[in-house]
Amino acid sequence: MASAEFWYEFASTYSYPAALRVGALAAERGVSLAWRPFLLGPIFAAQGWRDSPFNIYPAKGRYMWRDVERTCETMGVPFKRPAPFPQPSLLAARVALALQGEDRASFSRQLYAAEFGQGASIADRTMLASLLARCGVDPAAALERAESDANKALLKAECARAAEIGIVGAPSIVTGDGEVFWGNDRLEQALDWAAGRREGARPGV
Amino acid sequence: MASAEFWYEFASTYSYPAALRVGALAAERGVSLAWRPFLLGPIFAAQGWRDSPFNIYPAKGRYMWRDVERTCETMGVPFKRPAPFPQPSLLAARVALALQGEDRASFSRQLYAAEFGQGASIADRTMLASLLARCGVDPAAALERAESDANKALLKAECARAAEIGIVGAPSIVTGDGEVFWGNDRLEQALDWAAGRREGARPGV
Repeated sequence: MASAEFWYEFASTYSYPAALRVGALAAERGVSLAWRPFLLGPIFAAQGWRDSPFNIYPAKGRYMWRDVERTCETMGVPFKRPAPFPQPSLLAARVALALQGEDRASFSRQLYAAEFGQGASIADRTMLASLLARCGVDPAAALERAESDANKALLKAECARAAEIGIVGAPSIVTGDGEVFWGNDRLEQALDWAAGRREGARPGV
Repeated sequence: MASAEFWYEFASTYSYPAALRVGALAAERGVSLAWRPFLLGPIFAAQGWRDSPFNIYPAKGRYMWRDVERTCETMGVPFKRPAPFPQPSLLAARVALALQGEDRASFSRQLYAAEFGQGASIADRTMLASLLARCGVDPAAALERAESDANKALLKAECARAAEIGIVGAPSIVTGDGEVFWGNDRLEQALDWAAGRREGARPGV
């Protein structure tokens, strides 16, 4: 079966619509999808950025906010800008990584919906616990696993792996043959590629 | 008739596939297209960049080169990286701006094909003159108009206008209602928007 990896960061705006779309797009193409949460912080830091480039470069930030708003409008999903931006995503990423399979995907979608659909703070443990409960996962056990030394080390390794693969932003799709496709607007092209339908993999077509 | 503006920069890699695709995509949707050459230099300078961000941030550069190569491969068009990158695009932009209507579009497509299809240097007057002749334009007259004070001032005004609209990169499509869509991968969405077919304007769908 064709497979692909969906690399996402909970502080990333474009990862929100992507997380809502990617499961169905992969299933339509018969592509098995691995959800891989990571942090952009180390990748940005390697480029000399100590903040989101959307804050460092205000013109890019203005463009992005309007673009994401427009994207959500077209998809018919709510959009509310969280404050502060970016949200501290470390704990959420650890929790997602401590979950497996559909639990991880389901928790991640719900977290994005809360963060960018309702503007909720994702560093809040009570909020994370209530999302976990909604996914049928025991919140206390999941949070304990999330904060174990092994899981912390695993997230660090995932971040190092992202940089090594050549990931420069989120969301990114990595195909079985090592191609990286960056952006919510590239999901179709990436998954077509993963499915071997390269003739259909024209940008945006 | 619905209309849109195609803003492009001759040094921009992603403007190459976009310039080859945009005419047919606009025509299919009944959108009248204005080709607006400009320079990214002033916009980058305002963000503190004195070089292409693809050179300043090598990881982004590596991603971009592979991505553009892959895009061209899928489109079935040649790709050859010009040296140096970015190419000095001032004279080419002035020439394009001195042309009107289909002459401008045709010259621009040919210039991109020479630059990124064959790796040619676009600062070369002889090369520009031969492209002009191929478009049925008198090269000497066009180069003279290109370097007139009025045309130089017009290009400066176009660059200022791009920044004012909120353009942050090339290619960008600007719709009649002032929406900006950035990227070769957003042409379809932008032109759907311009045509009023917003239900079809999902990212990448």
